[in-house]
Amino acid sequence: MGEFELIQRFFTRPTPQAVLGVGDDCALLQMAPGMQLAVSTDMLVAQRHFFAATDPHRLGHKALAVNLSDLAACGARPLAFTLALALPEADATWLEPFSQGLLALADAHGCELIGGDTTQGPLNICITVFGEVPVGAAQRPGQPATLALLRSGAQPGDDIYVSGTLGDARLALEALQGRMDLPDAVLNVARQRLEQPTPRVALGLALRGVASAAADISDGLLGDLGHILQCSGVGATLDTGIAINLLATQAYFTRASIPFNYMLSPQLALQCVLAGGDDYELVFTAPAAQRAAVQAASAASATPVTRIGQIDAAPGLRLVDGHGAPVANTFTSFDHFKA
Amino acid sequence: MGEFELIQRFFTRPTPQAVLGVGDDCALLQMAPGMQLAVSTDMLVAQRHFFAATDPHRLGHKALAVNLSDLAACGARPLAFTLALALPEADATWLEPFSQGLLALADAHGCELIGGDTTQGPLNICITVFGEVPVGAAQRPGQPATLALLRSGAQPGDDIYVSGTLGDARLALEALQGRMDLPDAVLNVARQRLEQPTPRVALGLALRGVASAAADISDGLLGDLGHILQCSGVGATLDTGIAINLLATQAYFTRASIPFNYMLSPQLALQCVLAGGDDYELVFTAPAAQRAAVQAASAASATPVTRIGQIDAAPGLRLVDGHGAPVANTFTSFDHFKA
Repeated sequence: MGEFELIQRFFTRPTPQAVLGVGDDCALLQMAPGMQLAVSTDMLVAQRHFFAATDPHRLGHKALAVNLSDLAACGARPLAFTLALALPEADATWLEPFSQGLLALADAHGCELIGGDTTQGPLNICITVFGEVPVGAAQRPGQPATLALLRSGAQPGDDIYVSGTLGDARLALEALQGRMDLPDAVLNVARQRLEQPTPRVALGLALRGVASAAADISDGLLGDLGHILQCSGVGATLDTGIAINLLATQAYFTRASIPFNYMLSPQLALQCVLAGGDDYELVFTAPAAQRAAVQAASAASATPVTRIGQIDAAPGLRLVDGHGAPVANTFTSFDHFKA
Repeated sequence: MGEFELIQRFFTRPTPQAVLGVGDDCALLQMAPGMQLAVSTDMLVAQRHFFAATDPHRLGHKALAVNLSDLAACGARPLAFTLALALPEADATWLEPFSQGLLALADAHGCELIGGDTTQGPLNICITVFGEVPVGAAQRPGQPATLALLRSGAQPGDDIYVSGTLGDARLALEALQGRMDLPDAVLNVARQRLEQPTPRVALGLALRGVASAAADISDGLLGDLGHILQCSGVGATLDTGIAINLLATQAYFTRASIPFNYMLSPQLALQCVLAGGDDYELVFTAPAAQRAAVQAASAASATPVTRIGQIDAAPGLRLVDGHGAPVANTFTSFDHFKA
């Protein structure tokens, strides 16, 4: 199978929305009037972001999901994406399920594959995703004129929320890499979160005009909330007593009466929740006056959200327990070039 | 140096044109009224597209040049690009010249770096480039409504042109891989073509409304012209007597009185010109009535063009010599998944 047959067979599809899709030097998109283009790109490397033996159907899903998650964090509606793929070999038994997983998620979001590149090389998946957000008035002087959710809009006094559950992907990674034991039933739940994250696109759209700032959680909550704090020039206080309950599998342990020796220490559970990475949930802020609107956005998008803290004027990120007492922050987020 | 310091130090720049550049979950672009977005993506893999020891300044240039070449082939004006980069290590002595080579070419084309991704992994450079082309009337029923140059517009009787020179990049590759000897002076000329191709952006813009079809020559003239033929449902006849003179270094051999034992056989010279790859010139077609307009576009963009053949109604690609006699086509273009 040659390069062009590979593209034709697995990655060429009708593109009713695009002016021109796969097969020319460029793809062409026509933005609707009053809309801005939102762009994000993510590169997934074998052994770094996923095990080479990962189920290719799940990998196809995840490769697009992590990009859609960036659109979600901006409140952008997905339009299209390009796929650049370096493959050790043109293996149809891998490409078929990979493309199916990828395109099933694309179809679910009306996101058209409009172009790409394939080459021989160490397995590497680079997707660039395109979405639309309405032009809008700048929230404050110096801010861009857009309705997109930005990292820079958090204000002192704003509530801090996260969507869904956190930390289970990291828990699965720890188990799959042999650093801990998990019962199969728990591992399967956690592994699903690692390998098939759900991009919170509907929530992002519902939060436009409601949230003051947002980011997606890819490197861990503390790190990604840290980006919001840095871009907004503010600090925050987080309640670890609430955060620890965001680990979906922790609740599962309790419900399923898993033997004590499998239970997580609170410290490990918090490490997973606060700095696990690979969650692809949203962390966002909103003024207290928007609490009802946040709940309405959560309901409209069928996405649970949890209020876990507050934005402070004082810089820095403070952790407190359920009684307001300080908790030492010994948690570190993921950095690709640090140990 | 961590991931965020790396991005801040080498890849964060002012983006006066973009609504929002590097540093949020998405970048934001506002298209001008009446403009369509042209998108292309190319992935460069170490040892496949370049030697790992390639001068990083030249590599930065080339990584963007091959993408700008796709915009040129569509007649699109460059606006912006994203950069996804997998690096074995965060090495400032490599990143600094790489980013300088990349950004110097970006600045020359007013093309803003608006976002990206960095990760640890085998060296891989994936750029997605964005340009603008005016909305236009469809050339024929079923064609998209755009002024972009497409692969699908060639008509029987059209002239076939190429820009610049062809085959020298391949010649350099043959020499650098030890399959042939070249005098240093010749190798330096050829190597420049391999490592620092010039994207024909100005020519592409000048050919809007003049050329009937266009593609960029990345895999070799025969293969890329073949895409035009396939997309347009036509055939072609090419004059190898003209084509052989497109090898810049062949002329250099003659002029510089290089000893006979270095001279290329006509067969090897033609192989380089017709199927060498890595040229990043344009191949395009235009009605004979547009010959003066093609020359004007060439002059306006200071880009030489050569008429090398004609589009035929009969499918297939025929080679003829300077006297019109058939030449056997034993030349094969590059395919990433074939030997």
